[in-house]
Amino acid sequence: MSLKAIVFDAYGTIFDVLSIATLGDRLFPGKGVELSALWRVKQVDYARIRTLSDRYESFSKVTRDALTYTLHAMDLAPDEATVEALMAEYDRLAVFEDSADALLALKASGLPLAILSNGDPPMLEAVVSNNRLGGVFDHLLSVESVGRFKTAPEAYELGPKAFGCAVDEILFVSSNGWDACGAAWYGYCSFWVNRAGMPLEQLGVSPAATGRDMHDVVGYVRARIASR
Amino acid sequence: MSLKAIVFDAYGTIFDVLSIATLGDRLFPGKGVELSALWRVKQVDYARIRTLSDRYESFSKVTRDALTYTLHAMDLAPDEATVEALMAEYDRLAVFEDSADALLALKASGLPLAILSNGDPPMLEAVVSNNRLGGVFDHLLSVESVGRFKTAPEAYELGPKAFGCAVDEILFVSSNGWDACGAAWYGYCSFWVNRAGMPLEQLGVSPAATGRDMHDVVGYVRARIASR
Repeated sequence: MSLKAIVFDAYGTIFDVLSIATLGDRLFPGKGVELSALWRVKQVDYARIRTLSDRYESFSKVTRDALTYTLHAMDLAPDEATVEALMAEYDRLAVFEDSADALLALKASGLPLAILSNGDPPMLEAVVSNNRLGGVFDHLLSVESVGRFKTAPEAYELGPKAFGCAVDEILFVSSNGWDACGAAWYGYCSFWVNRAGMPLEQLGVSPAATGRDMHDVVGYVRARIASR
Repeated sequence: MSLKAIVFDAYGTIFDVLSIATLGDRLFPGKGVELSALWRVKQVDYARIRTLSDRYESFSKVTRDALTYTLHAMDLAPDEATVEALMAEYDRLAVFEDSADALLALKASGLPLAILSNGDPPMLEAVVSNNRLGGVFDHLLSVESVGRFKTAPEAYELGPKAFGCAVDEILFVSSNGWDACGAAWYGYCSFWVNRAGMPLEQLGVSPAATGRDMHDVVGYVRARIASR
């Protein structure tokens, strides 16, 4: 089966959500790492809970709510200026260096590329544009159009719909183990970029391939193209 | 509106999932608390992800998978004997002392009581029976019958179905903030037993009432009965 397209998760895969720890540390010295980590956990929790309960709100709203909870939980003042400053940082998340390199290399391979993210369109457009990646992607696919967050099938369905090909002809790349598993369940050729060296999620499904960073995705795609 | 029944979450509300830290500490000295906490996080994650992806497995399986992941993630040997010993402990979780007291007091109020849990029937029956609570509950409601974990509406629907009354005539009691919110969304009169003194989950919904332990539930129910 030859690959027809590559779809990437955004947060944690292309963009480093923990890079927000730097601003967190400036606002609350010594607490940036804990703040960014708890914020991320709650963001994912709230996205899942809202989808389970059929109570969709945009990812901006979910992200803001998760931040408010995090600031309360850490006994930090959740005043409006702090919340706005941290939320604004989300549009300026740093791209991982290996991701920037890999995206250019994969673009040169001729395969069309897309992002498929929980993020809503304004968030995705901002972070892509701020990292000067606007020309790289053929589609920025947001779950906003289906009102359900990953790992709901309606979210993953956006990939084959956008590219008009079979799901198993699309490589789905994520650094989130649960996302790589969810995509594999849905039928993608799933690649897990295991940046943190974590164990495989015990969900009874495995990604088709695993690597340590996005350079490994480039190697995998080149091997797939060469073996055609 | 008068109350017709009371429905309780099981794990974390009636039974202390962190009591497993004691065995964890015997098996892996100094690591029991971390083990029981991560195990619980992954258990809830896996239940949610499987429901989002429509890949139901019994809560025993989900719990075992979460334990396997946890042991790997903590670099502890996940040998079969260890897994079996820890899983067996799940049937013997300690009942919170305030919960045991409160259940007897609430039973005496004459309202019918039930558990509504992610746990599968054998797990629920074992932990209820091992804590000698068999005579307390009119129903042990397991999401197994609908194949979706909380906070899916199909799970919460089990309460009004079992009691044959309107959902807002049922008091739903949970120590898990997300569960109390999910139940409130579904329409229950929801009571959050905030044992850990956590901030309210930022989900745009609030439980009808909040207390610090199960004694507060007794107080709330007595006040509701007195005001009829």
